[in-house]
Amino acid sequence: MTDSRIKVGIVGGTGYTGVELLRLLVRHPNVDLAAITSRGNAGTRVADMFPNLRGWTDLAFGEPDAEVLGACDLVFFATPNGTAMTMVPALLDAGVKVIDLAADFRIKDVALWSKWYGMEHACPELVAEAVYGLPEMNREAIRSARLVANPGCYPTAVTLGLLPLIEAGIGDIGRIIADCKSGVSGAGRGASVPMLMGETGESFKAYAVAGHRHWPEIRQQLSVLAGQPADLVFVPHLLPMIRGIHATLYVEGVGADIDLQGLYEARYAEEGFVDVMPAGSHPETRSVRGGNQCRMAVQRPPSGDRVVVLSVIDNLVKGAAGQAVQNMNLMFGLPEAAGLDIVGLLP
Amino acid sequence: MTDSRIKVGIVGGTGYTGVELLRLLVRHPNVDLAAITSRGNAGTRVADMFPNLRGWTDLAFGEPDAEVLGACDLVFFATPNGTAMTMVPALLDAGVKVIDLAADFRIKDVALWSKWYGMEHACPELVAEAVYGLPEMNREAIRSARLVANPGCYPTAVTLGLLPLIEAGIGDIGRIIADCKSGVSGAGRGASVPMLMGETGESFKAYAVAGHRHWPEIRQQLSVLAGQPADLVFVPHLLPMIRGIHATLYVEGVGADIDLQGLYEARYAEEGFVDVMPAGSHPETRSVRGGNQCRMAVQRPPSGDRVVVLSVIDNLVKGAAGQAVQNMNLMFGLPEAAGLDIVGLLP
Amino acid sequence: MTDSRIKVGIVGGTGYTGVELLRLLVRHPNVDLAAITSRGNAGTRVADMFPNLRGWTDLAFGEPDAEVLGACDLVFFATPNGTAMTMVPALLDAGVKVIDLAADFRIKDVALWSKWYGMEHACPELVAEAVYGLPEMNREAIRSARLVANPGCYPTAVTLGLLPLIEAGIGDIGRIIADCKSGVSGAGRGASVPMLMGETGESFKAYAVAGHRHWPEIRQQLSVLAGQPADLVFVPHLLPMIRGIHATLYVEGVGADIDLQGLYEARYAEEGFVDVMPAGSHPETRSVRGGNQCRMAVQRPPSGDRVVVLSVIDNLVKGAAGQAVQNMNLMFGLPEAAGLDIVGLLP
Amino acid sequence: MTDSRIKVGIVGGTGYTGVELLRLLVRHPNVDLAAITSRGNAGTRVADMFPNLRGWTDLAFGEPDAEVLGACDLVFFATPNGTAMTMVPALLDAGVKVIDLAADFRIKDVALWSKWYGMEHACPELVAEAVYGLPEMNREAIRSARLVANPGCYPTAVTLGLLPLIEAGIGDIGRIIADCKSGVSGAGRGASVPMLMGETGESFKAYAVAGHRHWPEIRQQLSVLAGQPADLVFVPHLLPMIRGIHATLYVEGVGADIDLQGLYEARYAEEGFVDVMPAGSHPETRSVRGGNQCRMAVQRPPSGDRVVVLSVIDNLVKGAAGQAVQNMNLMFGLPEAAGLDIVGLLP
Repeated sequence: MTDSRIKVGIVGGTGYTGVELLRLLVRHPNVDLAAITSRGNAGTRVADMFPNLRGWTDLAFGEPDAEVLGACDLVFFATPNGTAMTMVPALLDAGVKVIDLAADFRIKDVALWSKWYGMEHACPELVAEAVYGLPEMNREAIRSARLVANPGCYPTAVTLGLLPLIEAGIGDIGRIIADCKSGVSGAGRGASVPMLMGETGESFKAYAVAGHRHWPEIRQQLSVLAGQPADLVFVPHLLPMIRGIHATLYVEGVGADIDLQGLYEARYAEEGFVDVMPAGSHPETRSVRGGNQCRMAVQRPPSGDRVVVLSVIDNLVKGAAGQAVQNMNLMFGLPEAAGLDIVGLLP
Repeated sequence: MTDSRIKVGIVGGTGYTGVELLRLLVRHPNVDLAAITSRGNAGTRVADMFPNLRGWTDLAFGEPDAEVLGACDLVFFATPNGTAMTMVPALLDAGVKVIDLAADFRIKDVALWSKWYGMEHACPELVAEAVYGLPEMNREAIRSARLVANPGCYPTAVTLGLLPLIEAGIGDIGRIIADCKSGVSGAGRGASVPMLMGETGESFKAYAVAGHRHWPEIRQQLSVLAGQPADLVFVPHLLPMIRGIHATLYVEGVGADIDLQGLYEARYAEEGFVDVMPAGSHPETRSVRGGNQCRMAVQRPPSGDRVVVLSVIDNLVKGAAGQAVQNMNLMFGLPEAAGLDIVGLLP
Repeated sequence: MTDSRIKVGIVGGTGYTGVELLRLLVRHPNVDLAAITSRGNAGTRVADMFPNLRGWTDLAFGEPDAEVLGACDLVFFATPNGTAMTMVPALLDAGVKVIDLAADFRIKDVALWSKWYGMEHACPELVAEAVYGLPEMNREAIRSARLVANPGCYPTAVTLGLLPLIEAGIGDIGRIIADCKSGVSGAGRGASVPMLMGETGESFKAYAVAGHRHWPEIRQQLSVLAGQPADLVFVPHLLPMIRGIHATLYVEGVGADIDLQGLYEARYAEEGFVDVMPAGSHPETRSVRGGNQCRMAVQRPPSGDRVVVLSVIDNLVKGAAGQAVQNMNLMFGLPEAAGLDIVGLLP
Repeated sequence: MTDSRIKVGIVGGTGYTGVELLRLLVRHPNVDLAAITSRGNAGTRVADMFPNLRGWTDLAFGEPDAEVLGACDLVFFATPNGTAMTMVPALLDAGVKVIDLAADFRIKDVALWSKWYGMEHACPELVAEAVYGLPEMNREAIRSARLVANPGCYPTAVTLGLLPLIEAGIGDIGRIIADCKSGVSGAGRGASVPMLMGETGESFKAYAVAGHRHWPEIRQQLSVLAGQPADLVFVPHLLPMIRGIHATLYVEGVGADIDLQGLYEARYAEEGFVDVMPAGSHPETRSVRGGNQCRMAVQRPPSGDRVVVLSVIDNLVKGAAGQAVQNMNLMFGLPEAAGLDIVGLLP
């Protein structure tokens, strides 16, 4: 099986998620990159836009071409929200599997999706079929999926950090707080004043306290885990750095007698990409920079009944392209870690 | 009164708090710098260590000299914890006023102080006399104080962010969460591996979740405000930047009918160094960089009964040296903003 | 004279040069801000765009209005290249003095200007009249000027660094190398992919090696100093930080017997904003952050006949807005340092 | 051959060079890590100090043990200067090959070495035998070497950038300028005030203009290339970022008729770790972050007879650990790129 080859296409490869997919795929032992598309940059060689890829690929961006994409085994969408849903039905019909790194298929409640994303859904019938691509929750479903909705970056860090607690029925699932911090690459590679280095460097702020699109996604996943409605306050912040998400998670009502460390270690013992650090640890985002790990620690503050979980990922890897490759590996029967043997870049 | 002059000494001026005091004092219209001491650097000109001060002062570091310090009107201590308490009694006896920027006089419960700071207190009788130097709480007491305990950086950001709520008796004061983030200058200027740029740059982490010295200080101040015991979970984090603290404060049990914006604006209407931003704002730390402001906003997340307060300061200014100058101005009957007319450095 | 008041207008205040001018002018003891214009943001309060100015000004951006601007004593242009030249003639006719922070009036050779800036000049006759606003070269001319061309940021750092040598006729003025490094704020506040923090953070590169607009400006000024044609290789680089320029200047043919330190100290002895550091020093950009100083050191490498001059400024202050205020002070007979009493923000 | 296994020891693995060696070696297909030593941290698990290695190795630091090290096929020294030379003779006698990442064996003139490094050499006779480990210069000698002196970071970037010119006898080799910029990781992981983030962040400066230890090393290598004495001015600068070196190289006397682009492309056509970018390019340090490439571009400024070469490496990879692994691969007959299939981490 490890000799099998997958013919892969990427739609929309000029953003940070796109270049990150390329970084992982050009050295993946089972992948042949067949096409990468970008309406605005057709004709440009990928390595001219992203010089880290010089020597690794000669591919050039092309126009999205139904025939070329239809001949792939798998197509990744690294497009703005709302694009994948217009192209996915035809690809699935052509027998192509799809992983959407945008949000088109993440929210099962289509009306809720429309409210948060501000558009009608083009193929609501596929939303039900799509598998939410968090392997630590849905590994078996992903293996047989035609269409995978790759999770958002914040939802990945938060859900993995809370999963053992919620599965075990511990804590008040209606009163969780997720205080999250992300590097600027999470905002993408579009030209904008707020993302200039002159605006984001050497400064820190919260944003979207009144409502962020990842909030309903996280609520949905926590509710799935709990088997009942869960709720949380989610406050994202912008870090003056490029890569990394740190979720600081507060759960109320956790009795002092519960062995949280043991619970977490047991739950993730077989998970190759989740690392539970020793009690008392403080995970650093740099320890997962460039790698597909989610690293976490469970702590108790000196008073009260709350537990604090610290969970870090590289938002572009486990929070996007790396998780997509992990899903691809599952969908095609490859070793789950194929092409993901990357040690975090520290310092 | 604005023509009066104060003869000022600084003990321990080689750290970031020290250079920041110097930055403010060299251009303060009423201050004559009489002495600055450093055992390790006696003889070195201040401007040779801190070249931003070239042209502003010819002062050199000297050995701590009881006679020189005793001839000052005011002595600032910018020393490690435990130093001020050994020198303050003699200075007060000599009629010198003192502002301690370290923690020696912040905690009223001397036993609690000893537990967190790991030493016996040298002059417990002065702890009771010392005034906690947060002007927005204790302005009148500061005016007549001989000895001011300048607040910690985190306690300043947190206490100011919660003060209007707690004074008004709103919210559950036993279940507050303070998720705080600080730039690296808060850790001081001592040589250490964890504070190298190679260790802290482009990374983010929590620290001291199990217990930080500012936690009992914040608990004390919130309890004073409440008139009854208050409690909180306090999680500090280290930001990959130099200056700035951002406190994200979560308070439970705040009814939807309360006009928080009005409450905050009214409470701080006369405070020159506290700025309540319009509803929906997200204060940035850079907006107060180098300045003495505390800037804040009050928000409600889309579900639940919790309020989120966002509060930012420059940890070296309102969180240390600037607040110390503000206290000095009060103690000597000067305009409270004298020498603090500094606009935040943005970008 | 220090009681006189100047009515000031700013055209184009939404960029980094604009907000920096505002930072300096709102606390300038002699300035009344009468108007600030921005076609795209008319109606927006300045402090809503730049929250560091909250509490310092209630001004809102307005449309450029000939009547309002014509009633000012002085108008600053902080606009893109090519804007000032269309409005300046009418303002001068109305008796308004003008300082242009863009490049419209910097290059005396109008054909050369057109070649580098890609447009025809709208008022070539005023180019001859305009005074190049480097006070250390042209103080007297600035005092009586109606129209000042505020120097570029790189030209300021390079020209000040070489001025004593060239005035003294030392070194080969046809073979200078200026290896310069700038923080990202020098590129302005326009939305663009290359200036995103995701693109410029944690990375370093040269740019425009084949030709940069500041090259002819520097050549012109060095030639003026030399009284004969001078030439240089100028290579700008982009630093992963916000503020600061560092010019590393290499001059050939400097005999070992020349007392460079004495030469530099003597030349700048009376200059309040130029600081010659002791022999062997390495100026840091942070030592001038937020301040109007140019700080420099002169060194000799261990072999050869070349001298290395290290010259630093804050590109937004001495390299733009601060120098403009310095020029304003000269033009209106105020103390040259009025409103510029700002200590560099270190750390 | 690709199935052969090498038993590797590392002496001094607690610095940045050490952790970087570990990052590369834990996933190298032919390496068995046998031992890593640190006097100060014996007993500490490597992954407890460097959490990015959690899951990759269970090794703990040990005391340097002659028997353990003597049983290795290869020992890397990632120690301070002066340590390797005291241990290397015994290891070579035991049949162990050695790669020293410090400077003990780089300078062939032992007296010159002693002058710059301030100590007597412990085994001058081995200095002559040691091969300077720059594969692009010395590939064949490295293959058969017992002892390799791994080049310094600056010397790697500078020598590779100039090699095609000097080999071809082009330019004035007595008047080269190397204006170099390095991230802070080049200064190592020792506790020191100047390397604190509070000191190096958001600032830029030159250092050691009067003389840096890499200057004689670069002079030596350029002279070897030229076959006659070469000289240069070398000015290093400190960048506010972690990884990356950018060398801006100025060579005089290069006639306009020479096809530099063709010269460089031809010289490096077969070099897998040197990438000559298209004419007009500006290499970014981030394009090689974490990877073993040296990426360069050759440019001509708009006037004069000088050429500007821009050369970037990751100082910890091609400038240290990666080059060491490349040398190891050569010494043991492995594919030169084994374990070095790492794409630069961009963004």
